Amino acid sequence: MREVYIVGIGQTPVGEHWDRPLRDLGAEATNAALKDAKTEKPQALFVGNMVSSDLCGQENLGTVISDFAGFSGIEAMKIESACASGGAAVRAAYLAVASGAHDLVVALGVEKLTDLPIERTTAALAGAADADYEAAHGVTFTALNALMMGLYIEKYGVRKDDFAAFIINAHQNATSNPNAMFRRPVTAEDYAKSPMVAEPICILDSSPVSDGAAALVLCSADRARSLSDKPIRILGSALATDTIGLATRKETLRCEAIRRSTQQAYKQAGLGPKDIDLMELHDAFSIVSALSLEASGFVQDGQALAFAQEGNITVKGSLPCSTRGGLKARGHPVGASGVYQVVEAVEQLRGQAGETQVKNCKVAMAQSVGGLASVAVTHILGN
Amino acid sequence: MREVYIVGIGQTPVGEHWDRPLRDLGAEATNAALKDAKTEKPQALFVGNMVSSDLCGQENLGTVISDFAGFSGIEAMKIESACASGGAAVRAAYLAVASGAHDLVVALGVEKLTDLPIERTTAALAGAADADYEAAHGVTFTALNALMMGLYIEKYGVRKDDFAAFIINAHQNATSNPNAMFRRPVTAEDYAKSPMVAEPICILDSSPVSDGAAALVLCSADRARSLSDKPIRILGSALATDTIGLATRKETLRCEAIRRSTQQAYKQAGLGPKDIDLMELHDAFSIVSALSLEASGFVQDGQALAFAQEGNITVKGSLPCSTRGGLKARGHPVGASGVYQVVEAVEQLRGQAGETQVKNCKVAMAQSVGGLASVAVTHILGN
Repeated sequence: MREVYIVGIGQTPVGEHWDRPLRDLGAEATNAALKDAKTEKPQALFVGNMVSSDLCGQENLGTVISDFAGFSGIEAMKIESACASGGAAVRAAYLAVASGAHDLVVALGVEKLTDLPIERTTAALAGAADADYEAAHGVTFTALNALMMGLYIEKYGVRKDDFAAFIINAHQNATSNPNAMFRRPVTAEDYAKSPMVAEPICILDSSPVSDGAAALVLCSADRARSLSDKPIRILGSALATDTIGLATRKETLRCEAIRRSTQQAYKQAGLGPKDIDLMELHDAFSIVSALSLEASGFVQDGQALAFAQEGNITVKGSLPCSTRGGLKARGHPVGASGVYQVVEAVEQLRGQAGETQVKNCKVAMAQSVGGLASVAVTHILGN
Repeated sequence: MREVYIVGIGQTPVGEHWDRPLRDLGAEATNAALKDAKTEKPQALFVGNMVSSDLCGQENLGTVISDFAGFSGIEAMKIESACASGGAAVRAAYLAVASGAHDLVVALGVEKLTDLPIERTTAALAGAADADYEAAHGVTFTALNALMMGLYIEKYGVRKDDFAAFIINAHQNATSNPNAMFRRPVTAEDYAKSPMVAEPICILDSSPVSDGAAALVLCSADRARSLSDKPIRILGSALATDTIGLATRKETLRCEAIRRSTQQAYKQAGLGPKDIDLMELHDAFSIVSALSLEASGFVQDGQALAFAQEGNITVKGSLPCSTRGGLKARGHPVGASGVYQVVEAVEQLRGQAGETQVKNCKVAMAQSVGGLASVAVTHILGN
């Protein structure tokens, strides 16, 4: 396989963009990434998106966005892997360049979730779980995550309040990110008082329903040298799955998809957990943050909360996480989040992360998780 | 890029599968293709599907089907390019093997369209057109195709009845295909009497709303030699787009996406129109058949109807088309159709096409078209 580099990044602010259609957000992020890479027209566009068919009445997003962004005619397709659609789009774009089929492509993630009543959005997002055997019984995606969080609390004898460190860190990091949806800090007291959504998940355990778009320009080694002073190399790229339903897992809290994709990415990169300077994790719910750190090999099973409480996940800690706010505070436009994570990791590796810049950041991991951790995409990035 | 071969094919009958969920159809076709290739577990699964989010409440199809087919854990993602989703899934699977990331993968197309009232399906399929500037005004996908057919009749001074040759050929070829939805012949008289849907498109101009799944096993050259006595090589693979909306095209009937993808595939294969022994074209509406033959370089613009009427498209003609019934009579489970086309081309190249076997079939083209020909995927296959 050929080496693949990232030479351009672009993003829209995350928020409630009621006044802007999907194509507008997608084109803005795409053209910002191309401008950042000092180039104009990619050879292909891979669009990560989950629910545009259901909530926007629009499919054929590859065609729509390549047209609206000003380069109709190129290869373009949509990639969907539930909440990991953004990560999967980066993976598909990576394969297109690694294969030699294209030298310069865009990976875009775009999602609009806020235009319709919340019940519609909730129902659409339940399609990330097992529609026939889980969602059909009325269980929401939040309720399924609540089952995992309740089991974690019981199995490891921790308290719900122990999860606060993840939320406090994410909100603190978002305060200086101009593209974040929630740019205000929260305290342990705020977390303790946060209204319950699906016990034990409260509002502050949950990432927000959001709109947004983020994009990357990926290219071959030859093009990277001519386009950028500091191209970022994709050292490892892997996507793996698990069973779709929670009930069919041997061990509910093991998250085999995350384990597999991380191990494959480590192997490709020739690296291990100790080499990672930064982890952009999929903190859609705080339970997923804990399980991700464990399944990715950073801590032993059951140790993630203590690891976070000891300050390891802050910008100055041993493994900074969610450094631009994460899904929790930057926001979670579902099919876009996996691309935001890579954009933010590139900001860090370039030294462009402002107040939350991680010192000596050489190697970063970005991990996009879908369904009840039934699919995970892990990218390891470096210089 | 590495060479890529097809060593397994599988398909379900096309029809109204009210009693079977999406995952069941997808797993049946996938496992049939793996059995045909005498292998059990692929390294990755690329699922072509358009509207499962809207009509089945299920996304995350890569995870769902890899789990249900019995190989949970592998890489799996959904690929969407409207009605060309099946072709795009073949393209994504091709890139995964060509890159060297995987040696053996499955490309699956699966769609269920018949479970809900037809108005719901019609609305979902309109998402292949421009949702904001076309579908929002109430125009259906059939009505948009009718505009193209009306313009064709006017521009070239042909009669609606001249289109009958495409429909008669497709239905005749389907009579011996056990997987076809409509296995009955139709006559020019039937076509003349067929009730109007959106003038000038009548029922017999239109492919049926269908359910079904088709799958291919793709692999590297090394694996191909050990798995199959007659591996079929992908000689050319290309996906291209056009503007999403019909109103923004310079020439409505030129179908630039088809032109571009065909030219790119010819170039990669080192072949031209005269080298093609078989054309599985996207006959979703008979106007698309005509435009596809013209844009693919088989005939001059405006000459496709005469070409068909002269018998060239029949099994014994100079360019056999829709040899297993095409979208028109085999049926059109939207995101699956592009994979059915390649499966059928492989049947022909292997000499397994039964009563409609094309003699001396060495090189085949399969072409999947989406939206108002706003996206097209062309594959050229040979030995």
